[in-house]
Amino acid sequence: MSDDVIALTKQLIEQKSISPDDKACQNIIIERLKSLGFIIETLNINQTKNLWAYHGEGETIMFAGHTDVVPAGDESKWRFPPFKPTIDQQGNLYGRGAADMKSGVAAMICAVEEYIKQYPHHQGRIAFLLTSDEEAEATDGTIKVVETLIKRQEQVHYCIVGEPSSEKIVGDQIKNGRRGSLTANLTIHGIQGHVAYPQLAENPIHRFAPALNQLVNTIWDNGNIYFPPTSMQIANINGGTGAENVIPGDLKVQFNFRFSSELTDEKIKHQVETILNQHQLNYTLNWRLSGHPFLTPQGKLTEIACQAIKKVMHIDSQLSTTGGTSDGRFIAKMGCQIIELGVTNATIHKVNEHVSCDDIVNLKNIYHEILIQLLGH
Amino acid sequence: MSDDVIALTKQLIEQKSISPDDKACQNIIIERLKSLGFIIETLNINQTKNLWAYHGEGETIMFAGHTDVVPAGDESKWRFPPFKPTIDQQGNLYGRGAADMKSGVAAMICAVEEYIKQYPHHQGRIAFLLTSDEEAEATDGTIKVVETLIKRQEQVHYCIVGEPSSEKIVGDQIKNGRRGSLTANLTIHGIQGHVAYPQLAENPIHRFAPALNQLVNTIWDNGNIYFPPTSMQIANINGGTGAENVIPGDLKVQFNFRFSSELTDEKIKHQVETILNQHQLNYTLNWRLSGHPFLTPQGKLTEIACQAIKKVMHIDSQLSTTGGTSDGRFIAKMGCQIIELGVTNATIHKVNEHVSCDDIVNLKNIYHEILIQLLGH
Repeated sequence: MSDDVIALTKQLIEQKSISPDDKACQNIIIERLKSLGFIIETLNINQTKNLWAYHGEGETIMFAGHTDVVPAGDESKWRFPPFKPTIDQQGNLYGRGAADMKSGVAAMICAVEEYIKQYPHHQGRIAFLLTSDEEAEATDGTIKVVETLIKRQEQVHYCIVGEPSSEKIVGDQIKNGRRGSLTANLTIHGIQGHVAYPQLAENPIHRFAPALNQLVNTIWDNGNIYFPPTSMQIANINGGTGAENVIPGDLKVQFNFRFSSELTDEKIKHQVETILNQHQLNYTLNWRLSGHPFLTPQGKLTEIACQAIKKVMHIDSQLSTTGGTSDGRFIAKMGCQIIELGVTNATIHKVNEHVSCDDIVNLKNIYHEILIQLLGH
Repeated sequence: MSDDVIALTKQLIEQKSISPDDKACQNIIIERLKSLGFIIETLNINQTKNLWAYHGEGETIMFAGHTDVVPAGDESKWRFPPFKPTIDQQGNLYGRGAADMKSGVAAMICAVEEYIKQYPHHQGRIAFLLTSDEEAEATDGTIKVVETLIKRQEQVHYCIVGEPSSEKIVGDQIKNGRRGSLTANLTIHGIQGHVAYPQLAENPIHRFAPALNQLVNTIWDNGNIYFPPTSMQIANINGGTGAENVIPGDLKVQFNFRFSSELTDEKIKHQVETILNQHQLNYTLNWRLSGHPFLTPQGKLTEIACQAIKKVMHIDSQLSTTGGTSDGRFIAKMGCQIIELGVTNATIHKVNEHVSCDDIVNLKNIYHEILIQLLGH
């Protein structure tokens, strides 16, 4: 059984499934779920493959995840070829997606296989929601499947997203919520001119400088018991024609908020616009909300997950809401309890992404234990 | 004759001669000078075209200028296509280079044609020094030709640079000196990372913001009787990978000083580095000195130019040292009297650069009158 989850992880890594191209990942999974007796539904949208599958009926636990990966970058910098999964002498499995999140997908499939073979007539319902569009736009993936399921009044009570949530060893951290994400696309309008005649021009970089200083020094909130303080980061700033003697006409600035449940996107927008207006700037501002903050307070799912981790790993798990967005933000709309629980995230999106084989096996065992505690034995 | 100078200006604007690409500008000019009997010498260096030409012998008046232009920027913002010269109903000629300085080049060529046709056996020598590398690096242009001429012990007594020196109407202002120009190429080093984990990264835009604010609000000096206060302008600022979820590793900033004789490049460098160090920034800074300040005191050339302007325009001209650098800073090394005298500069380097057709014709007539007063009739 241990060999099986490693073998499936490797098989999935061999599929070069750069978002949103699933390659054969979901087909491999469908074959396995079919032979367990799952009802299978594919909801493919444009180039994105989505899978909704379930087994049993009643109170539902759903495993969610994605089969796509980010590009490998410069493959020559990798210790091993990124799409030829390789285990080194320390027992670490290398490959793009090894951590984010093909090991998580393999662990949930193998845990469910193990559980159903033991308890073919289990109580409740086990479901899967998989997509090949999580790492890129995320517009044709989980968000669309969730819309469809809500229309059908499908009930999901518990959801485990298999994203790499852990820090040093599998299970040391569970995400029980995520910050909201809001992006501002700002253009400061000035008047182009020659640097020698500044009185005939208006330099948008100079005009923006005091506002920039205020923006980066603003304390947006102090967070709360579940969330760290809201963070603003300027991701891109571009002004200038390239010539050293031209005052640019425009300055473009893109900045992103990761915000706690103490704030709303509307409050942030108001505060930013107040700052820009105080400095009497001539600007165009467009906002993009990627996700509201969401939170699963401590309750049945978090407690069972912590117990399962304790049993398998003999450690206490921490609840956390730090880190990036995930498809949990979409699933939250179904009103279920959601946690993210997966392998370690230290190497995700990086060169030499890898994960310990022990962690993969342990993750499978944790999922298995959660199924037993939630659905019985 | 009036139509001719407008026609030549338009012909030059049609050449999309972004520095240092001359296109066919100098070829057009060479053909005209050859048929006047000029001795022609081309001194091309790398991609820069340089022209040295003369007619007659003895006391020498040299016309100097450039055939290159700055980029047009966003062409969709122009009233007329920037490289399709167009005259509007008010008699203004639009196009990149209309003011800076293809009209000036056309005016000097046509004035000399007119003068030599009237006085083929004139006293003294009329010379031209043209380059296609004034707006960009200016490393392969006038500076190199001047070095060559000095080595040959060529004598130049008077020089008129045809840069757009005027404010509201041609001739209202003559430049008899120029500020120094110093450019800083600054890179602020941070640590790249994911916007969701700012504690693992260091955003160079955030780190630089207070220093930027200080730089743009510094009063560098108050100028003096010949020079306006020193001005600093940020020409280019670029940071970011393009992705909205990545904190950039570096921020690149380019800024330019136009400085009076109250300051030296060394003093400016010291002051900037002090500010950067106060803010404890990790940075790389490279300086480029384009020119020290220089000055031509009142004398024969300024007086004749003022008389010619008075005769053609019926106005009194002001001497000034404001505005950009010009190749006058290099020609100054030849020890000649230098003025800059050209059309109005209100729209140079901007979208919708334009100049009054009347001013172009009047400039040609002013140059013609200067030739008569300097070389006789």
